[in-house]
Amino acid sequence: MPYAATYPDRCYDDFYLTRASDVPALYQRLDPVVHGPVDGNHVFTPEDAKTFEENGFLVYQSLFDDHEIAAWQAELNRLCHAYRGTAYPEVVTERDTGEVRSIFAIHEFSDAFSELARDRRLAGLAKAILCDDVYLHQSRINYKPGFGGREFAWHSDFETWHAEDGMPRMRAVSMSLMLTDNHAFNGPLMLIPGSHMTFVSCVGATPDDHYKTSLQRQEFGVPDRETLSRMVDQHGIEMPTGKAGMLLVFDCNTIHGSNGNITPYPRSNAFFVYNAVSNAPAAPFAARKPRPYFLGSRNATPIRVH
Amino acid sequence: MPYAATYPDRCYDDFYLTRASDVPALYQRLDPVVHGPVDGNHVFTPEDAKTFEENGFLVYQSLFDDHEIAAWQAELNRLCHAYRGTAYPEVVTERDTGEVRSIFAIHEFSDAFSELARDRRLAGLAKAILCDDVYLHQSRINYKPGFGGREFAWHSDFETWHAEDGMPRMRAVSMSLMLTDNHAFNGPLMLIPGSHMTFVSCVGATPDDHYKTSLQRQEFGVPDRETLSRMVDQHGIEMPTGKAGMLLVFDCNTIHGSNGNITPYPRSNAFFVYNAVSNAPAAPFAARKPRPYFLGSRNATPIRVH
Repeated sequence: MPYAATYPDRCYDDFYLTRASDVPALYQRLDPVVHGPVDGNHVFTPEDAKTFEENGFLVYQSLFDDHEIAAWQAELNRLCHAYRGTAYPEVVTERDTGEVRSIFAIHEFSDAFSELARDRRLAGLAKAILCDDVYLHQSRINYKPGFGGREFAWHSDFETWHAEDGMPRMRAVSMSLMLTDNHAFNGPLMLIPGSHMTFVSCVGATPDDHYKTSLQRQEFGVPDRETLSRMVDQHGIEMPTGKAGMLLVFDCNTIHGSNGNITPYPRSNAFFVYNAVSNAPAAPFAARKPRPYFLGSRNATPIRVH
Repeated sequence: MPYAATYPDRCYDDFYLTRASDVPALYQRLDPVVHGPVDGNHVFTPEDAKTFEENGFLVYQSLFDDHEIAAWQAELNRLCHAYRGTAYPEVVTERDTGEVRSIFAIHEFSDAFSELARDRRLAGLAKAILCDDVYLHQSRINYKPGFGGREFAWHSDFETWHAEDGMPRMRAVSMSLMLTDNHAFNGPLMLIPGSHMTFVSCVGATPDDHYKTSLQRQEFGVPDRETLSRMVDQHGIEMPTGKAGMLLVFDCNTIHGSNGNITPYPRSNAFFVYNAVSNAPAAPFAARKPRPYFLGSRNATPIRVH
């Protein structure tokens, strides 16, 4: 596809109205999915670009070596152990058990994950898709414990980032690196392929400090059931599974969610959101103040990929 | 395997002690899994018998015609609609939404399901496995709605039937007939193959009227996490999927559970428990009074298979 012109610098017009009424609405995506020509990135082939444009996500089963994966697993376990029971705002615990569910801003907490975030297999891939310099909008590890790790409701990340963080356009991409085997039965991520082409405007207004409850259970900024049913009837549900080390790359607007996990197997991953530098946040489009730095960075200094 | 002698008539000795201490214990199964010779039942082949003995469950993908399945689906939907919001004790609703989760004693509520319960593909199969006349210990439909149908914790049915209903020995079999497609993502039943050979004695005592809460979320009579982890490490987890009409047959002591379901697809089934007439309930082994008739029948009149 031809190279798309960059948007007007810092566009403040709201092309994706949400949380503004009690009636759900659907808007067509106005932005490209792959934002430039595919010019020989070592990972991102023209076939990958086609799949990503069509489905809104891509899976790489083996970009990483076993010893790299083992090191990140050890670091994840170290962090979950070290931060269990602490009161840092970056640490989110399970409502029922107090176990660590997520730790945010891991590129600040951990040298190993800071380095991974700048790895060309992640950051370089993000640059290839977004065709711009990129920065980290968010990073986290999800621990998702066994024996009752809770579900995540269906949602588009972009809807939240637009409404609560002020991200103007769809020019961001998420990467989830699995650090445990991803079975069909331990609550893997489910995606609605093709859902990234439609913006589902959500009903209701954003409560103040919404993030304090939404990280445990999201109730605003989730698509209505009728829309979800129609989308799933049309597109189905995909649930990629694979070994630890599997990388799942998905567009910022692909609707996804996951079931709970009663098995003994945790489902853990490291999660990085890359945003185009030209798409850095403005004021929130549907909230009174932006969320804290660890949920939506406001520092758009480009990552130096290595 | 050789024909096993019938147990002493109405044995009241407790061979499977449970809910009697604060320390979990494991007991070896004392009862056969297939209780007699496999002598030409039209469904149950010698290979099926071998699989069932080894794994504790069996799957039949296509014993039923499309028009039969359609009729049972219609009946299930009729019942769920008719009993939504009613206060019958046989009707169990979702804690959060009030939607119908299960209706018990459907052979009493519905001619169609009463007839199904006596069908030779179910009741005849149960007789072949249990090598005795059989009666219905329990019947139900599980509706498991989409958009948040809750999980069922891991458990052995026999543990509850023994503790709360007074079922003396392991000579009962459950049959779950899927009435919706059973995907990997809409909370299908998970089983631990081989777990039927061990009785996991559970800790704690049974609260009075335990069934009133346990049907929504079971907290007593569930195996401890350490035992579950060890069993899963040893045996793995199986999660049979298939089209509506799939029949899952499992031993009364096979440990099973299911995750929640955030997809739009309900996961519905009709569920029948056949017990050997010679294994009819005594007094409960670990509760003050037996559960109501619709959870554990005390009428052991043999079913006339047709």
